[in-house]
Amino acid sequence: MPGDGRHTLTVRRVGIDTYRENVVFLHRDCHVYRSAGFQALNKVEVTPADGGEAVLAVLNVVDDPAITRPDELGLSLQAFEQLALAEGAAARIAHARPPRSIGAVHRKIAGETLGYPDYLGIVREIGEHRYTKIEMAAFLVACTQGGMERDEVLHLTRAMAETGDRIDWKEPLVADKHCIGGIPGNRTSMLVVPIVAAHGMFIPKTSSRAITSPAGTADTMEVLANVELSARRFNEVVRAQRGCLAWGGTSRLAPVDDILIAVERPLSLDSPGQMVASILAKKVAAGATHLLVDIPMGPTAKVRTQNDALRLRKLFEFVGDRLGLHVEVIITDGLQPIGRGIGPVLEARDVMQVLKNDPDQPRDLREKALQLASRILEFDPDVRGGQGYVLARDILDSGRALERLRAIMAMQGRNPSPPEPGRLCKALPAPRDGKVAAIDNLQLARIARLAGAPLDRGAGVDLCRKVGDAVREGEPLYRIHAAFEADFAFACEAAEAASGFLLAGGD
Amino acid sequence: MPGDGRHTLTVRRVGIDTYRENVVFLHRDCHVYRSAGFQALNKVEVTPADGGEAVLAVLNVVDDPAITRPDELGLSLQAFEQLALAEGAAARIAHARPPRSIGAVHRKIAGETLGYPDYLGIVREIGEHRYTKIEMAAFLVACTQGGMERDEVLHLTRAMAETGDRIDWKEPLVADKHCIGGIPGNRTSMLVVPIVAAHGMFIPKTSSRAITSPAGTADTMEVLANVELSARRFNEVVRAQRGCLAWGGTSRLAPVDDILIAVERPLSLDSPGQMVASILAKKVAAGATHLLVDIPMGPTAKVRTQNDALRLRKLFEFVGDRLGLHVEVIITDGLQPIGRGIGPVLEARDVMQVLKNDPDQPRDLREKALQLASRILEFDPDVRGGQGYVLARDILDSGRALERLRAIMAMQGRNPSPPEPGRLCKALPAPRDGKVAAIDNLQLARIARLAGAPLDRGAGVDLCRKVGDAVREGEPLYRIHAAFEADFAFACEAAEAASGFLLAGGD
Repeated sequence: MPGDGRHTLTVRRVGIDTYRENVVFLHRDCHVYRSAGFQALNKVEVTPADGGEAVLAVLNVVDDPAITRPDELGLSLQAFEQLALAEGAAARIAHARPPRSIGAVHRKIAGETLGYPDYLGIVREIGEHRYTKIEMAAFLVACTQGGMERDEVLHLTRAMAETGDRIDWKEPLVADKHCIGGIPGNRTSMLVVPIVAAHGMFIPKTSSRAITSPAGTADTMEVLANVELSARRFNEVVRAQRGCLAWGGTSRLAPVDDILIAVERPLSLDSPGQMVASILAKKVAAGATHLLVDIPMGPTAKVRTQNDALRLRKLFEFVGDRLGLHVEVIITDGLQPIGRGIGPVLEARDVMQVLKNDPDQPRDLREKALQLASRILEFDPDVRGGQGYVLARDILDSGRALERLRAIMAMQGRNPSPPEPGRLCKALPAPRDGKVAAIDNLQLARIARLAGAPLDRGAGVDLCRKVGDAVREGEPLYRIHAAFEADFAFACEAAEAASGFLLAGGD
Repeated sequence: MPGDGRHTLTVRRVGIDTYRENVVFLHRDCHVYRSAGFQALNKVEVTPADGGEAVLAVLNVVDDPAITRPDELGLSLQAFEQLALAEGAAARIAHARPPRSIGAVHRKIAGETLGYPDYLGIVREIGEHRYTKIEMAAFLVACTQGGMERDEVLHLTRAMAETGDRIDWKEPLVADKHCIGGIPGNRTSMLVVPIVAAHGMFIPKTSSRAITSPAGTADTMEVLANVELSARRFNEVVRAQRGCLAWGGTSRLAPVDDILIAVERPLSLDSPGQMVASILAKKVAAGATHLLVDIPMGPTAKVRTQNDALRLRKLFEFVGDRLGLHVEVIITDGLQPIGRGIGPVLEARDVMQVLKNDPDQPRDLREKALQLASRILEFDPDVRGGQGYVLARDILDSGRALERLRAIMAMQGRNPSPPEPGRLCKALPAPRDGKVAAIDNLQLARIARLAGAPLDRGAGVDLCRKVGDAVREGEPLYRIHAAFEADFAFACEAAEAASGFLLAGGD
């Protein structure tokens, strides 16, 4: 019934941010809602009345005409942006067909092994927003529980890499690094990129913002410089400096990974298969040829045993090899946070101390960055095996890495007024004399987040003692920084309930 | 920091129906949102400023002060109702702690068998709205994929039955019936209840509304009478008539089942364990002592093979026995829809034809109702084995069942203006001469829903031919009824694409 006025509604932007999920709003008395047997939380398909690409969204029902009138179709910010119509334009709404690939998800739930066409179908339809969050959760749990054959991990990685854009840098060697995460502080990329780029290697790394951690590299770099670059500016920086420290969020590289992560993280599903697919798909799409993967191992890290670390390493190698990506995996010490600061401002301070050879610099952060940089430098055929470390150290000690970071900052746009550590500050005292036997990565990250990191750049935790250090009763184990009373109270409460520090002995 | 003004926000009702999920809205510039490191889609805990029970909800971020101002806390209809504060009251918001039982879900994902305390913890926290939809999906998929030991099904059933209210009727025998669903039409409860109640047996059955089907018993009964009874009125009807045909949606019997169903259905997860737990938990909480379960079997039914039907029967028996509920399972013919009408008005017509012994009545609906009623009547120790059928037929043929339904209708509140079949009507003609070899339950249900059932009571499908019937080219296979052009078009399109009828031979 094309042209039938009954079918069209007037588009309205509803100022609700539904975060990676399209939502449309229909008034309960809307004739289309009344008639078409729609149900709340159903998926619907919205099409511009004059043709154009359809947008899929979840339906919410509204009783308040101030939000959406009966003749209107309300769209959440995400849905409105995606539909790309002006307010007042006409649009049609219809039942969305269920994703064709949902049958493959049910086969996976039933314990079957899926093939490449299955994974491609699933990934494509997730990219088209045909999957609800519930359906994505079902897919992810099915892959976690039944496990994935390593060939399936390869299929999923390939499907994700191929769904979205792909960069060809036209460079013989495109280096990249990635840490699987889980260790607070640990801001090595901001050291490794300038060292490697100063050597002349090409490392067009993009970084992420924190999702569940107290800081991502993009959040920390933003303390010093703009990280939201246009594609054009990103290219200019990379071409001029051989490296970059920009946020990767605006790119269309393996976009399905971002959609899945929004479901994976709240579920704390970190299965090896999904982790490998997620990381390698992004790197392949970004045009990397050589990748160093950092797997921190420790009792409160993501990977807790040598066996798990080795299994994960082999899976990275298997998939990388088949996708033409040279992957090296390094298993590092994940016993405790790396560096002193946890939270963007405090971590940026640590990074600058290392670059400036400050006598007070956190030695563990320096050492780890050198260790990683040396492995990447050795990707260079002109660097002799075993010479990477000396080379990296020379670049760092000579100030060339600092100089390179400053050049990158200048091109990205230096932050004219870098934020300070949060003004509210409380030291957490040692309850008795002792030696630090262990630090719980998870608890320290939690306290820093409660204090307001990463949203409040200056919030977080500043460690005064690390594992092995002696401390006397009443001396601070760490300081909590916050900007707002409410967060400060949340964080202090949490720290008092469980400091995250284990003291041993009394010497 | 109790009493700190920073913590409180002004409660506002936001007219958005988020369907079984609590949602709260904070303005992006709200100081609490800014400061406390909340993220969209996080779970938060809302507490009345002067104490009282907390409500858990998902956070959405708002840019439009017309929806929620920076000093306000917007609550969706569900959340507002649950918090039970007036608009303008003060409330606090905090990070919700993750459900304590999520560890058990992760163990289930890892393939472990869970014990009763695990299931009880999960069910309780789902009941407290501590689980997100994503977390519930993870739990359900883990139970489906890894499967549940029959002891686990028992644990889950017991946990669901114990979380919520429980009725003690103080009657020696409380009968109930339940069909696992999947067959369009099939409105047997509206016949079985009056037959059994007319015999004097106690059958306080409540019914459900359709979720994914074209009609539930409650939707169909509503064509004739009010089904939304207060607890008090429900009791009065049951005590006076020995039976009832009311909607069970307002009761607090195994409420977690309703929450889980809202996730299960869109995922089409119908694992035997979840089905048995869902049905039996409700019946145990409702105080039933004797239950007849109807499992229709057929190529387009929920249960497709004799083996699956038997396995399901044994699971019902195992769990029922251990919960002190006498369960009998009957495996019925699920080859095609039962009766002619699909959709509330058309199904109500079928039911009344059978009760009135209309010569045009659908014989299959009559026979199936008698078969079920006879088995329930034989729960009565005073009824000789094998005499149930004759007894049921006598009650039906004598008009006593009709009389009882009318008495029930009168007490529930007769509908003064019963709706008519949808005025838009199209017959779907047979494409050639032949004999009906098969009817696809799923496709017919889909067409009826597209036509507007169950929301539009008069919408649906009216079958003119059943399996085994001969038909000549051009004669109608069925008629589609709808009230609105848009639905009518959707349904006709779907029927033309696939009629759901398979014709064989040419005689």
